[in-house]
Amino acid sequence: MGNSDSKNNLKIILDDSSDLSLNQLRDLLNNMSSSEIAHALESSPPKQRKLLFSLLETNEEGDVLADLGEEIQQDLVSNISNEELTEAVKELELDEIVDILQNLPEERMKTVLSKMSLRDRNRIELGLIYPDNTAGGLLNTDVISVRPSHTMDVVITYLRDQDVLPENTDKIFVVTTDDQYIGEISISKIITSALNLTVEEVMEKGIDPILVSQDDREVATIFERNDLISSAVINDSGELLGRITIDDVVDVIREDADQNFLGMAGVAEDTFAPPGRAAKSRVFWLSMNLITAFIASMTINIFQDVLNQIVYLAVLMPIVASMGGVAATQTLTIVLRGLTLEQINSSNIRWLFKRELAVSILNGLVLSVLVGFVTYFWFEDSVLSILISCALIINLIFSVIAGVFVPLILRRLNQDPAIAGSVVVTTVTDVVGFLSFLGLATIFLI
Amino acid sequence: MGNSDSKNNLKIILDDSSDLSLNQLRDLLNNMSSSEIAHALESSPPKQRKLLFSLLETNEEGDVLADLGEEIQQDLVSNISNEELTEAVKELELDEIVDILQNLPEERMKTVLSKMSLRDRNRIELGLIYPDNTAGGLLNTDVISVRPSHTMDVVITYLRDQDVLPENTDKIFVVTTDDQYIGEISISKIITSALNLTVEEVMEKGIDPILVSQDDREVATIFERNDLISSAVINDSGELLGRITIDDVVDVIREDADQNFLGMAGVAEDTFAPPGRAAKSRVFWLSMNLITAFIASMTINIFQDVLNQIVYLAVLMPIVASMGGVAATQTLTIVLRGLTLEQINSSNIRWLFKRELAVSILNGLVLSVLVGFVTYFWFEDSVLSILISCALIINLIFSVIAGVFVPLILRRLNQDPAIAGSVVVTTVTDVVGFLSFLGLATIFLI
Repeated sequence: MGNSDSKNNLKIILDDSSDLSLNQLRDLLNNMSSSEIAHALESSPPKQRKLLFSLLETNEEGDVLADLGEEIQQDLVSNISNEELTEAVKELELDEIVDILQNLPEERMKTVLSKMSLRDRNRIELGLIYPDNTAGGLLNTDVISVRPSHTMDVVITYLRDQDVLPENTDKIFVVTTDDQYIGEISISKIITSALNLTVEEVMEKGIDPILVSQDDREVATIFERNDLISSAVINDSGELLGRITIDDVVDVIREDADQNFLGMAGVAEDTFAPPGRAAKSRVFWLSMNLITAFIASMTINIFQDVLNQIVYLAVLMPIVASMGGVAATQTLTIVLRGLTLEQINSSNIRWLFKRELAVSILNGLVLSVLVGFVTYFWFEDSVLSILISCALIINLIFSVIAGVFVPLILRRLNQDPAIAGSVVVTTVTDVVGFLSFLGLATIFLI
Repeated sequence: MGNSDSKNNLKIILDDSSDLSLNQLRDLLNNMSSSEIAHALESSPPKQRKLLFSLLETNEEGDVLADLGEEIQQDLVSNISNEELTEAVKELELDEIVDILQNLPEERMKTVLSKMSLRDRNRIELGLIYPDNTAGGLLNTDVISVRPSHTMDVVITYLRDQDVLPENTDKIFVVTTDDQYIGEISISKIITSALNLTVEEVMEKGIDPILVSQDDREVATIFERNDLISSAVINDSGELLGRITIDDVVDVIREDADQNFLGMAGVAEDTFAPPGRAAKSRVFWLSMNLITAFIASMTINIFQDVLNQIVYLAVLMPIVASMGGVAATQTLTIVLRGLTLEQINSSNIRWLFKRELAVSILNGLVLSVLVGFVTYFWFEDSVLSILISCALIINLIFSVIAGVFVPLILRRLNQDPAIAGSVVVTTVTDVVGFLSFLGLATIFLI
């Protein structure tokens, strides 16, 4: 935990760095923890970020890189030499090195690996096998393991003989002679157990270790549900490969939440990404919206006749579409949350749909009365008021159908429902909104 | 970690519970961990949830309640007697008991407290002082503390004398005789240090403990930045009050992300909330949108004349408004993320605004050419195509101004920018979209 001085340094860097000399900046950075430096880099525009990074000592660079988000990490790594990179990552944990190396171009990764010791290289190549978004991507090999026949006395002596225990060591693992995982013992248990007991007598069995191929979000759920600090990771044949620790799981949770949040708006970039990259990350979404906006326009186009005769229909028609869009987004949000938390399944989806329908009808009644009244006082046309109220209720009912089924269908098609969901859903409510309002108007007003 | 059997039980409960007898259900529940039961309850509609909860043993009820979200927790608590509640929470951790009790009606809380032992009551009343969203709301008093003069030998003997160490004990705290916090020692360090060293020689100083009044999101940031498992909590006069552990911090991170995600759509309810409650939680947002939709309509109303003469303006006008809304939401999302992560400050906001402007102009050029072409091929009117392109660029520029400054202003007014932001921002782009398109049309087309 940084002390108050170093927090002040962070504040100075963020607020007034432009007034400082390079030497003053370097002094400030020297007094900050690597996570604070990483935060300062993430809060800086690209040019200043590069400058700050260049002021770091090589031994600090690795820790700072490990604390950065993927995009910024890659940017900075692409600016340093292979020698410097090799030196910088040398002391990092396995999962951190793997994170950095796996994003390098193939050529460069090989060059950097070739500069490492054989032992490091083998360890890292093991890590590089596993995809980033699996338990394997979070794997560290700094485990302490013991045999079932050892006594507590032997275990404690063994632990005392270590200079330091690996960080976040809350438990050690029990393995057979051929490294098959069979159980675990917490450090607390070791401390409080009688010295003559064997590992076998003290250890906890029947705990499922994590499979190296499990999805990293699944890993996060397991950690959260069971309040874990660390967990063993095994391969398909039950061999202990290493462990995952809570600090890396917290990062998964944060990144996952960040992506969900950004995904809904079709943005995918770091806060201070350069304009070209930011524009590129967003243009897809805007283009999708352009297509759906033209689809809505084509719907309106069908009704040129009625619009020509009654101009205030054009004034009112966005209300029906927009209310449907908001209601659909609300339903979509609830369904997305339920899907993310794995709360929704075949047995309760029917209930959820009926509930959403009830909510929409309840709110639809209230809002359609409001809309009807306002329209009546504005245009003094009672038929028009009734039409807009009916169109609103129709659109709210369709908003439920879209909000519930679009994400389910997208998920079945293996698309991320958080990203494509809101565009599809609001297209439905735009089209239905214009169709129902202008359609009813065509029937009843001309 | 639940074993595979208990995971299967969870699946059976979720998928086929309606086909099971009460005894079968009870058997399944008995074999599940409390967190799995909590997940099953959160994934069930209210009636089934109540039934499942009623099948639990009283000693299991407490753990399950502690694992539930606030809303469901309160619902279930309101259905059980004071005696049962007192019995159920007895064995929980302090912060868990406080979470449950502080949401009870005043009367009921007093009654439940009066049924507890004096020691428990004092401890809980201490916890109830602190607001839910501060470090105090996460406080547990199960700390182990030692004096600086003790030797490692004494400390280890003391630890060995405990039956079990409190969960997630990765460190113990060093205090003076009047309980002033002065440092901490990790359990790993205790194990690997020479037995004749004193606490004072081994302990880490210069670590800032958490202040009991600190915001819980700040606590989460401190834990994340420093990869903590637990941290000391002190009051203003430096006295050690207890500790916070990572499992509770993970819950804060999850809830925070959940609220951000739901807040953007104006929803605030659990996934299976009953229809009345869900409708109530959403109607405010829908009503706000109704007001803004009427504001947009009034903007269109100004242009009745031009709409009357050129009907296809009504066909095209939603395109400009909708594109502006999407662009503004993208900018808003980036700014909200930056504010949440405390990346945005006075020194970089200017850069960020310029970057957003550049992004909007870049994407605006691409999209306006597209829109212009499509419009030209559709209506074969080159003036109209140029007008819609210009209107789009104008609206995209305003989308940046709204997307950057609305959240900053809302925050200064102490409003949550995630909740009010998107309504305000899309109102701006709707109004500007209609104004610019129909305004330009009025000038150049009639």
